Amino acid sequence: MKVKLSSTGPEMSRIVAGVMTWGDWGAKMNTSQIQKQIEECIDLGVTTFDHADIYGGYTTERDFGNAWKDMSIDRSDIQLISKCGIKYPCDERDYNIKSYQTTYNYITWSVEQSLKHLNTEYLDLLLIHRPSPLMDPQVLAKTFEYLRKEGKVKHFGVSNFTSSQVRMIQKYTPLVTNQVEISVLNRSTMTDGTLDQCLEYGIRPMSWSPLGGSKMFTPSDQYEFVAQRGRLKAVADKYDWGLDELALIFLLHHPAGILPVLGTTKVDRLKKSIALLDKQISDEQWFEIWTAATGENVA
Amino acid sequence: MKVKLSSTGPEMSRIVAGVMTWGDWGAKMNTSQIQKQIEECIDLGVTTFDHADIYGGYTTERDFGNAWKDMSIDRSDIQLISKCGIKYPCDERDYNIKSYQTTYNYITWSVEQSLKHLNTEYLDLLLIHRPSPLMDPQVLAKTFEYLRKEGKVKHFGVSNFTSSQVRMIQKYTPLVTNQVEISVLNRSTMTDGTLDQCLEYGIRPMSWSPLGGSKMFTPSDQYEFVAQRGRLKAVADKYDWGLDELALIFLLHHPAGILPVLGTTKVDRLKKSIALLDKQISDEQWFEIWTAATGENVA
Amino acid sequence: MKVKLSSTGPEMSRIVAGVMTWGDWGAKMNTSQIQKQIEECIDLGVTTFDHADIYGGYTTERDFGNAWKDMSIDRSDIQLISKCGIKYPCDERDYNIKSYQTTYNYITWSVEQSLKHLNTEYLDLLLIHRPSPLMDPQVLAKTFEYLRKEGKVKHFGVSNFTSSQVRMIQKYTPLVTNQVEISVLNRSTMTDGTLDQCLEYGIRPMSWSPLGGSKMFTPSDQYEFVAQRGRLKAVADKYDWGLDELALIFLLHHPAGILPVLGTTKVDRLKKSIALLDKQISDEQWFEIWTAATGENVA
Repeated sequence: MKVKLSSTGPEMSRIVAGVMTWGDWGAKMNTSQIQKQIEECIDLGVTTFDHADIYGGYTTERDFGNAWKDMSIDRSDIQLISKCGIKYPCDERDYNIKSYQTTYNYITWSVEQSLKHLNTEYLDLLLIHRPSPLMDPQVLAKTFEYLRKEGKVKHFGVSNFTSSQVRMIQKYTPLVTNQVEISVLNRSTMTDGTLDQCLEYGIRPMSWSPLGGSKMFTPSDQYEFVAQRGRLKAVADKYDWGLDELALIFLLHHPAGILPVLGTTKVDRLKKSIALLDKQISDEQWFEIWTAATGENVA
Repeated sequence: MKVKLSSTGPEMSRIVAGVMTWGDWGAKMNTSQIQKQIEECIDLGVTTFDHADIYGGYTTERDFGNAWKDMSIDRSDIQLISKCGIKYPCDERDYNIKSYQTTYNYITWSVEQSLKHLNTEYLDLLLIHRPSPLMDPQVLAKTFEYLRKEGKVKHFGVSNFTSSQVRMIQKYTPLVTNQVEISVLNRSTMTDGTLDQCLEYGIRPMSWSPLGGSKMFTPSDQYEFVAQRGRLKAVADKYDWGLDELALIFLLHHPAGILPVLGTTKVDRLKKSIALLDKQISDEQWFEIWTAATGENVA
Repeated sequence: MKVKLSSTGPEMSRIVAGVMTWGDWGAKMNTSQIQKQIEECIDLGVTTFDHADIYGGYTTERDFGNAWKDMSIDRSDIQLISKCGIKYPCDERDYNIKSYQTTYNYITWSVEQSLKHLNTEYLDLLLIHRPSPLMDPQVLAKTFEYLRKEGKVKHFGVSNFTSSQVRMIQKYTPLVTNQVEISVLNRSTMTDGTLDQCLEYGIRPMSWSPLGGSKMFTPSDQYEFVAQRGRLKAVADKYDWGLDELALIFLLHHPAGILPVLGTTKVDRLKKSIALLDKQISDEQWFEIWTAATGENVA
């Protein structure tokens, strides 16, 4: 179930494990729990782990690295993604305000930190976490070139970028993905040009919050969401799917070949998700979901 | 009065006959009436006929084809446009919901239906009717290539596409037009990049609802439209134009070389429209219309 | 302090003198006052003067030219920018309404007028002042080619253009700048793709109203602006800057290499601005300004 993000790679598992909530920003797993989680993911074929330097206030990469270093798994059997560029004020870092930095010195330093924390020689994929108004595409190209030559990072991508930002960077250096929020509840990338551009460039998008987040599962008093959830539930019931399955089926059927980043730490839910990779739906079924989500027929 | 849509063709009449309302979705003409209508169009130089598979609930292509097959007109003397990709629930088709499909199998099958209904060996131009979130540009390229090689379709275009959607498709296969709504009452394509892109790529846009539809001609109680209509009427009166003439003059003066798709079945109105092809206005006169439409001076 | 707008030039002073308010639309300077102003600018290294045909109702180029012709300054020591394309009804011109014109005949005629008024053989840079819906990029390319060959204009650019308009023109003729409104109070070009495109194409933007205009300096009753101004003032105070200095520092730090067009006729303020060219701030400081302007932390 490996797929290539672009013609030049890298290969990633189609379902990606999102590590954001494994540590201080969520489950607060200890070393042995993380080791167990990593093992279970790999057993299920989920070999790609999605990190960012800031997760857990710059602590989760370290927690993962401490767990990973004592496991007897070949480095080449897993893929590590990390992100950088956000300076986040917290215990670990003495920043005054939240800001972005995408300079040569900062990014190369930040990657060194991630490598050290993760106990690895290289990242399979580095993403610029947020588009900064201060990005200089030629500086990024030079930075990426250095990191590639040194063997510290194999491939490069971006996250939460608009099409014009991707186009600007892509002019000077090849990108292999744009990781953005995509779900049945947040379909804007499907019409605003973001996914069009991925298909134009032949790169696969990744999706964070692929199930729609709490809005999907937490009952809300807002009429708009109650009605939408009701319509989606009716479609799910018709086909005997759960709402989480419906959300994932919706993403997996898209021609851009979206890689969902699943944050769940529950192995059962991960298993259910992987089972969906073999599921085929018709385009008409997909539009049943779309129509339930928008609340109106297509034009 | 023929024009080329792109450097590679095809040649179309500058004014295109819109067939949407000839059948069940409008005038409900019988065979001899359609034959008369076709003859009168051709006599006026309007040799291009704009169809879509769904018009009349999948019946109007057939009505046209039944009329056309017994007329002694050379196929090469007219140009047939059709569109596909919308699955529209109606008597003729057993669909549960309105949806889009742009797969190889569906489009090739759909074109076969259109060819059979229209009693023709080929379409001069096939348009994807609406942009589907599920379009795969490489699949479309392969589909178009097959249809071209088989001689079933000469040229390809799209309808109602945004610039990023056109760019995505154009990357893999050449398009010759984007048929969109453009009129003095709907000027968004003139500022949102749609017509910029046509000029960039050297392709001519086509305009549906070129006269602004009923909003232009039906008195409305909404103050906004009453005021706008009043301003446009004042310009039309100043130059002794009808409102329909003003609307068409506005389109024909644009440098993108817009082809209006006229839905009228009244020969007199068609004649009046064709007479406007020789009419020259100044840019200042065009901005008088623009300013009347927007209600404010340009910046 | 000269910078190149693109790899092919031209060289301009990093701070540009905006001439719009020197004449009838502002200070109403007489010939000797204009001569003094020109001298003081040049002494400060501000050698680039930003004109438009319409400034002062088509009178300010003439006022400048009358002053300039009797000064003993080498033409090659200064750079003259002008703009054309707006037909502005006023005493000097018999137009009925404000409109745009970008035809070959009109632009070449308009440039002749500017050359005559400015008492110069050539413009260093000509900008199309506003994007007209009637622009034909191939006509513009032909027009620019003629003006370049004749030695009347060295370089070409645009003003107030969207990315799709720039892309359309750039397809047929190279542009060296897009002069747009950019300031700490108007940051839209930093996120809507305008500055991304400049960085993609390797051209420098110019900024009109770089200090934010009167909204920045005139107390307002609107709560929104009072609050914003208060936050910006707090940052300025922290670093012992004036609000005008903060505004300029914000622009000068941007990687696109923005050239501010300063309209001030006060030499003291010009001096203060030039002193800022040597000022270095950190990215974090820049985001302090950004955050004060937006009123919220970055994502």
